[in-house]
Amino acid sequence: MESFQMQSFPQYEIKILNYEKVILANQGDNLAQKILEAGINLRVDCQRKGLCGKCLVEIIKGKLPPLRKKENLILKEKGLKTDKYRLACLYKIESDIKLNIPPESIIHEISTLKTGIKSSLTLNSALKKYYLALKKPQISSPHSGLECLQRGLPKKYLINNLDLVKKLPKILDKSKFKVTAVIYRDNEILSLEPGHTLDEAYGIAIDVGTTTLVASLLNLNNGQILEIATSANSQMQFGADVISRISLAVSNSKNLSSLKKAIITSLNQMITELIKKTQIKRNYIYEAVIAANTTMNHLLLGIPVASLATAPFHAVFSKLPPLSNQEAGLNIYKYGKIYFSPNIKSFVGGDISAGLIASNFGNRPGNYLYLDLGTNGEIVLKTEDKLIATSTAAGPAFEGMNISCGLPALPGAIYKASYDSRLVFSTIKNKKPRGVCGTGLIDLIAIFLEREIISCQGRIKNKAGKIKITENIYLTQKDIREIQLAAAAVKTGIKMMLKKHNIKSKDLDGIFIAGAFGNYLNIKNSLKIGLLPEIDEKKITFIGNAALAGAQALLLSLPAREKIESLADKIEYLSLASQAKFQDDFVNSLEFKKWSI
Amino acid sequence: MESFQMQSFPQYEIKILNYEKVILANQGDNLAQKILEAGINLRVDCQRKGLCGKCLVEIIKGKLPPLRKKENLILKEKGLKTDKYRLACLYKIESDIKLNIPPESIIHEISTLKTGIKSSLTLNSALKKYYLALKKPQISSPHSGLECLQRGLPKKYLINNLDLVKKLPKILDKSKFKVTAVIYRDNEILSLEPGHTLDEAYGIAIDVGTTTLVASLLNLNNGQILEIATSANSQMQFGADVISRISLAVSNSKNLSSLKKAIITSLNQMITELIKKTQIKRNYIYEAVIAANTTMNHLLLGIPVASLATAPFHAVFSKLPPLSNQEAGLNIYKYGKIYFSPNIKSFVGGDISAGLIASNFGNRPGNYLYLDLGTNGEIVLKTEDKLIATSTAAGPAFEGMNISCGLPALPGAIYKASYDSRLVFSTIKNKKPRGVCGTGLIDLIAIFLEREIISCQGRIKNKAGKIKITENIYLTQKDIREIQLAAAAVKTGIKMMLKKHNIKSKDLDGIFIAGAFGNYLNIKNSLKIGLLPEIDEKKITFIGNAALAGAQALLLSLPAREKIESLADKIEYLSLASQAKFQDDFVNSLEFKKWSI
Repeated sequence: MESFQMQSFPQYEIKILNYEKVILANQGDNLAQKILEAGINLRVDCQRKGLCGKCLVEIIKGKLPPLRKKENLILKEKGLKTDKYRLACLYKIESDIKLNIPPESIIHEISTLKTGIKSSLTLNSALKKYYLALKKPQISSPHSGLECLQRGLPKKYLINNLDLVKKLPKILDKSKFKVTAVIYRDNEILSLEPGHTLDEAYGIAIDVGTTTLVASLLNLNNGQILEIATSANSQMQFGADVISRISLAVSNSKNLSSLKKAIITSLNQMITELIKKTQIKRNYIYEAVIAANTTMNHLLLGIPVASLATAPFHAVFSKLPPLSNQEAGLNIYKYGKIYFSPNIKSFVGGDISAGLIASNFGNRPGNYLYLDLGTNGEIVLKTEDKLIATSTAAGPAFEGMNISCGLPALPGAIYKASYDSRLVFSTIKNKKPRGVCGTGLIDLIAIFLEREIISCQGRIKNKAGKIKITENIYLTQKDIREIQLAAAAVKTGIKMMLKKHNIKSKDLDGIFIAGAFGNYLNIKNSLKIGLLPEIDEKKITFIGNAALAGAQALLLSLPAREKIESLADKIEYLSLASQAKFQDDFVNSLEFKKWSI
Repeated sequence: MESFQMQSFPQYEIKILNYEKVILANQGDNLAQKILEAGINLRVDCQRKGLCGKCLVEIIKGKLPPLRKKENLILKEKGLKTDKYRLACLYKIESDIKLNIPPESIIHEISTLKTGIKSSLTLNSALKKYYLALKKPQISSPHSGLECLQRGLPKKYLINNLDLVKKLPKILDKSKFKVTAVIYRDNEILSLEPGHTLDEAYGIAIDVGTTTLVASLLNLNNGQILEIATSANSQMQFGADVISRISLAVSNSKNLSSLKKAIITSLNQMITELIKKTQIKRNYIYEAVIAANTTMNHLLLGIPVASLATAPFHAVFSKLPPLSNQEAGLNIYKYGKIYFSPNIKSFVGGDISAGLIASNFGNRPGNYLYLDLGTNGEIVLKTEDKLIATSTAAGPAFEGMNISCGLPALPGAIYKASYDSRLVFSTIKNKKPRGVCGTGLIDLIAIFLEREIISCQGRIKNKAGKIKITENIYLTQKDIREIQLAAAAVKTGIKMMLKKHNIKSKDLDGIFIAGAFGNYLNIKNSLKIGLLPEIDEKKITFIGNAALAGAQALLLSLPAREKIESLADKIEYLSLASQAKFQDDFVNSLEFKKWSI
């Protein structure tokens, strides 16, 4: 006799109402597994152990299995009805089901850049929280407090922080062994909190510029930006540009620590402001990600910068593992972590690497330029098979420094100018004009060129050798020279990068301009004075504060960190100064005129 | 036509003279590889990259390949002849060779216990040192200092220590990029030293007892013990036994930190003494391994001990990852590491786990008892398939406490007594008798029993109720009762462990007695008063200070750490107090008499 085997057909129908999807399932299948298989990005931080409480679903129709203890605890803490909600990861399918998946239970795509190009990432931060009802030690099995904790967790996580070990008995006692464990990078117990705190998980992303600092506070559970703060870098008191601060730090190690203190103070003021505005507890801010130029991240950590002052102009570090906040003393969780977007080489720092991540620069097909123009102009060229970076010392003119009536991009700075039978200009925050910032200078030069007030060699044609803009604001011959030098430095940098890698201007598929500078830059005028090569204006995109956007991306996504760390290794560096033709090219670039190669 | 392929026969003969071995090799074979294949334990710490300088061989006859740069540097630093020595790991075989392998190039087996049983391990410490001639950064490739270092190392090791990053530029400058990197656990750059320091690598093993501390300084390159120091635990001023110190620490957190300070001070005195005697630099002592009972390792780290004071008597931690020395402040390398032999459960602490490693206890076939008798009697039973541990509160009588003329095992303590027509006794260091310590008390009780001065119920038969030993030294009825209680606690512990696991006294293949106590214990007398079950005396072995031996083993061998960490998880715990028959058994054990089950 032959034996027949029944083929098993899926028995049950699972309707996900708010996704308009139907899945088939067998008796005993795991609901979370089935939802994931259906291509829905359900959140399951805890490897389906019912600890993170993220995969809650609302059961509209179908068998409601008895509540598990962990489930009950989580529903109670969240104030959800026990006759409606279940954790999908603990749910065994035993009937047809109709359900809704609340948006909080879904991993969202988060867009990294708000302006310019589109780029997004999946939320996957370094922090995971687990709510645990721990087994208490018994006289017959007197497990240590730490063992009790470790036994409740999905993996054997390390505890590296002795202070946390010291606090452990009190936390366990106080909470009656019901605690929330904060795990860092799926590896380390970073914090331990009495009771249920799954909903509180925050991080800070910071763009540390030479002049300006911007910090944003993010909810790590959903990637939302809750608040943004900005501040001047109080290192300004020690020197306006990077070079003067490096000189100061090198001259005396006390200065190095003053510079460190200054920046940390500024950062903490911003963080305190963020905390105040959002009413979020400092201890729930577990990580800060910092995107800073090479000099800034060295000074912030008190690392000597002498090697940046002389050839071959190399940094002390490029990548660091996440540091303990005890090293920096930021106003976040005392034992929180600080991650630095890696430095690439020399002055091409963590602000640039962060920007590359935000703009998904490495993965675009075609030839692209990435520009970040400030005291140093950083230029990254992407060809079909390579990434090359360089840094060109533009000098501080574009930041309004060394210009008679120059001003950084602060309220009252003329940032935009045009000519319509007379000179028309806009100031930042519409304040009374106090001076001119970088973008304003570019517009003015373009106007003066067109109106033949200056020659394309940069000579002021009037006898006074001075151009009046308002009653008190003017440009001198020396000012024009400063701008000329700054523009030539950038121009030479771009030219040499393109030439070296055999890319013609017309081969460029796009130019990304990052930095606060970029937002107000007039493209036509930039082309006119020759700051950028002549290409189709549509190919030029302002991507805003890409360093901050990158810091946010790195805060929200571990895979983004892996990506930038490996990218930072791969990017080649072109030293302009070591190129034989640099001086020639530089001199040839001094004229204000359109160019292409 | 058919094509014939020549079979390739080994071409060359490699004679290792001092091992009397001949190996066959082909053109181009790696010499280190061939030596290892021949079963000779050649040292190759650096994965055969010519960085650790450990695999030097003396070429007596054969082709001497041109010196590689790294090789030349190492030979020069070691003052060896370049026409005789080569690194085997860089040597390609191209001729017959006759060679000698110096003993320094071989991994030795190191015996862990000097007394009693034999047990050994292979040297494989957590520290590896690499001597590196780093490539300097160039203007065309301005690698950061840290990158230069990382590129010279065989793997991408992390640097977790920001102070080391800060010092990096100076070290590179000063040494002209010739440095020795100290790697911890094949993972982390622990230190960086200018120039060649491969020969300097030390560690400290410490037995932290309630009363006495012993520290030994070891050469991590060859496993040799260079010096030993002992000291009283200066926590003694706060209470003689563990319980009184726990009470004190629980009463006030200031006391906890005083207790911490006291023990750290004592440890540092010992370490300073070791450094002074050996003239070894503090910065070359990279790691300390500590074997301490549960209370001591908690107090040493300033961890609250309240949970050890009340049922279920559980510790705060059992295992910790290696801590930074900054947490403890020992007089070793500032950023060195401290590894704690893991606590098993409750009062069965790191001293016991270390002792189990030293005696290879877990791997012996048969049934064994491991005893460490002090204020607490720790007992571990090994059966064919299980390991079970318990702790019994013997009270401090065996440490000479609570006894009218009791004394710890210090100079002048009577530690041995016999009767040969009159009472004969020995004192520690032959000093004038000042009192009686634990082993002396056991001998005296046995003598008094035999001479019927006391009954086996422990009653002093003379009217005075007091037994004179010397002019000033005597035992009172209360003293006898204290000893009786202590012995009964141990006896009950052993009995219950054996009963619970169905082991008869005669089934025991051996009893190991650890602790300073053990060395002077008179076996006959111990059996007579009923401290130990009646078994063949030959089966009882004193293994001396097994905690120190274990700490040394853990310092020298990473696999030993893995072994004890997994063993500590597996050992079951028997809580005597929670056993129904404990009180009965205890009362029945009070009589001084031989016993077996």
